[in-house]
Amino acid sequence: MPPSFVSFLSDYGNADEFVGVCKAVIVGLAPETTIVDVTHEIPVHDVRAGGLALVRAIQYLPAGIVLAVVDPGVGTDRRAIAVQTDSGVLIGPDNGLLAPAVAMIGGASRAVSLTNTEYWLESPGPTFAGRDVMAPAAGYLAAGVDLSDLGDEIDPVSLTPGLVSLPQAADGAIVGEVWWVDRFGNCQLNVDPTELGAAGVAQGATVEVRVGDDEKSARMARWVHTYADGNPGELLLLVDSYGLMAIACDKRSAAEELGVKAGQAVTLAFNPTSRPIKVAGSK
Amino acid sequence: MPPSFVSFLSDYGNADEFVGVCKAVIVGLAPETTIVDVTHEIPVHDVRAGGLALVRAIQYLPAGIVLAVVDPGVGTDRRAIAVQTDSGVLIGPDNGLLAPAVAMIGGASRAVSLTNTEYWLESPGPTFAGRDVMAPAAGYLAAGVDLSDLGDEIDPVSLTPGLVSLPQAADGAIVGEVWWVDRFGNCQLNVDPTELGAAGVAQGATVEVRVGDDEKSARMARWVHTYADGNPGELLLLVDSYGLMAIACDKRSAAEELGVKAGQAVTLAFNPTSRPIKVAGSK
Amino acid sequence: MPPSFVSFLSDYGNADEFVGVCKAVIVGLAPETTIVDVTHEIPVHDVRAGGLALVRAIQYLPAGIVLAVVDPGVGTDRRAIAVQTDSGVLIGPDNGLLAPAVAMIGGASRAVSLTNTEYWLESPGPTFAGRDVMAPAAGYLAAGVDLSDLGDEIDPVSLTPGLVSLPQAADGAIVGEVWWVDRFGNCQLNVDPTELGAAGVAQGATVEVRVGDDEKSARMARWVHTYADGNPGELLLLVDSYGLMAIACDKRSAAEELGVKAGQAVTLAFNPTSRPIKVAGSK
Repeated sequence: MPPSFVSFLSDYGNADEFVGVCKAVIVGLAPETTIVDVTHEIPVHDVRAGGLALVRAIQYLPAGIVLAVVDPGVGTDRRAIAVQTDSGVLIGPDNGLLAPAVAMIGGASRAVSLTNTEYWLESPGPTFAGRDVMAPAAGYLAAGVDLSDLGDEIDPVSLTPGLVSLPQAADGAIVGEVWWVDRFGNCQLNVDPTELGAAGVAQGATVEVRVGDDEKSARMARWVHTYADGNPGELLLLVDSYGLMAIACDKRSAAEELGVKAGQAVTLAFNPTSRPIKVAGSK
Repeated sequence: MPPSFVSFLSDYGNADEFVGVCKAVIVGLAPETTIVDVTHEIPVHDVRAGGLALVRAIQYLPAGIVLAVVDPGVGTDRRAIAVQTDSGVLIGPDNGLLAPAVAMIGGASRAVSLTNTEYWLESPGPTFAGRDVMAPAAGYLAAGVDLSDLGDEIDPVSLTPGLVSLPQAADGAIVGEVWWVDRFGNCQLNVDPTELGAAGVAQGATVEVRVGDDEKSARMARWVHTYADGNPGELLLLVDSYGLMAIACDKRSAAEELGVKAGQAVTLAFNPTSRPIKVAGSK
Repeated sequence: MPPSFVSFLSDYGNADEFVGVCKAVIVGLAPETTIVDVTHEIPVHDVRAGGLALVRAIQYLPAGIVLAVVDPGVGTDRRAIAVQTDSGVLIGPDNGLLAPAVAMIGGASRAVSLTNTEYWLESPGPTFAGRDVMAPAAGYLAAGVDLSDLGDEIDPVSLTPGLVSLPQAADGAIVGEVWWVDRFGNCQLNVDPTELGAAGVAQGATVEVRVGDDEKSARMARWVHTYADGNPGELLLLVDSYGLMAIACDKRSAAEELGVKAGQAVTLAFNPTSRPIKVAGSK
């Protein structure tokens, strides 16, 4: 039997023992399992951030099981689900967290709601379904239990979709959203380089960056190859390691420099004479 | 030979390489060992918090070895111990850290003081017994060394007891203590639901919560099933996933809302006309 | 085939999924590998701090592969390297990060630049060489690929050296540098006890500690055996668990007490009548 893998992402943080207990439950059920911690520092209850981290990571995770828990509705009648894909099974709450990753790897072929309480841990309260429902599902699957034993088959079409924002093209500009600010302060946007390319903007070009549609925040950024191409103080634009446009600085935090956070709108104006653009729904 | 497990809890934090080095020592001695990190972010030197985290986790940890290090007396003549229980061996300083977990799983059948320096790492200084004395003990045990080889047998009765506070019943109220504030701001109390039940208070009831015996801090809290049962702004009481009463809010931090920290006294008054209660020893 | 080990240190932090993705890449290529996380909280881009953490840890790491990534020059023409030593292979950027550890374990017998793109992951951008170049090298090596397949052989003499400061002896004093402030606030100096011993200063002695050459910061510190030998409020000097002199307090942070950070100069004056000493290059 080949080694089985469980990749594990959550908003449990590393300070409490939540993660350790879930991992203990998994290896207690399937002792040969290797667990890969994707991250556990997803901001509390931030399903969107968790879904984005998972979709970034999913293509690199070993074939097997993915356990993802960001679950503000724990203990309610929101479903806990296991979703079969071509690369393995994703387990988590049915709140959109898994949806972007499932879509990225080809969609769900089958899904169950984890309703079979024989595969739950007994628990005095309903507030830790990661430990009591979802980690056991991961452990039992790793130990060879069949997906269909874990609960009622459900229609994959019924799964809660993920909400992922799309950039909006405007006259001489693209209005995107900061999807992720990483430890280094790099700001990943939901903007693909081909979207800038279609407008004739390529590496080497200089683009105006505005936070939201605030003209006062306007800064010029040069599209470079890598961080160290930047001069001190210079704002940069580059294709990041996931193939998306990111705003960066060399050895400094672009997020601090611009004062932006994940979820904020950012305008890339490649015609610097274009005026601030009002976009419906921009923050 | 089945896989051996070492579950590891400490106050070493994740920033320094302390944890990594201890784990390296263990797998260096017993390469097939699987290490489960319970948590390493116990507040510095907080033996009580470490003991409470361990007692919460212990029933979920895989059978095998538990290594727990919160050791303000490192390098003094406080003993480093290994305690045999029915579920495995717990290793740590003899300062009460292990005691609540040992009691929870049925008590110690045997104990040794880790005095056999043949099983220590050589070290230039005495300040990292986790690496030099306790991790090696875990590694050697995992590799099959007998407990009695690690040092002098000691009477389990001589082990330092854990200091765990008990709630105090008062007229129309219970005065408990916050044992744990988790990442989400939920405040676990040392109060069992049966203690409220004995007073006729059950799910659905509304209880007055006071920080310590401060009447000005009084807030009403409704005993619900899960977080999401709460209304915005509402303070909640619920049975948490360890079977203890916890104060919570839906998608917000109850600890911030109340301004409480672990270790503080909290009064649950189920007869709201009861006056603040003076309790000896409450903080 | 014995289990293979990859010990992994970086400045990626634990909040993003960088570490998880690198580990997923490694176990995807070499499923039987055990990964030991040394630490991932090296301060961002701090090659010096990473090199010092690695040199402290290296002697405890299991024989095998070490992957270390603190890489401010990612995506430039700085080399990514794999260095053969008697205890295994170290992989990282060629920026001095690996050098102190390589020297500590006997030096490099062979080195390659990771130029063979067949062993890289395809990537849309050059900014995550940890995932795309260095973790794959670790994984392929763990899976049995020969070092020489990973790229061009290079002369070990050509590797970027590490910059490690040496203490400076002065009249009645030694001017050292804080190499590390740990979670507990202990300040490891680059001063060996034999350097104090040569001046007749031994355990039990009292030494004057000055931050840099600031006379106003002068405090007396007593050379003790372990933290708990200190009285409340007392500043201590001791031989730490790596055999270096450290400034400490019992159950408090010496770094806060003195107001020092890693990288700052500290004077140990064992002749308290000696005046502040001007030292070239001290901060």
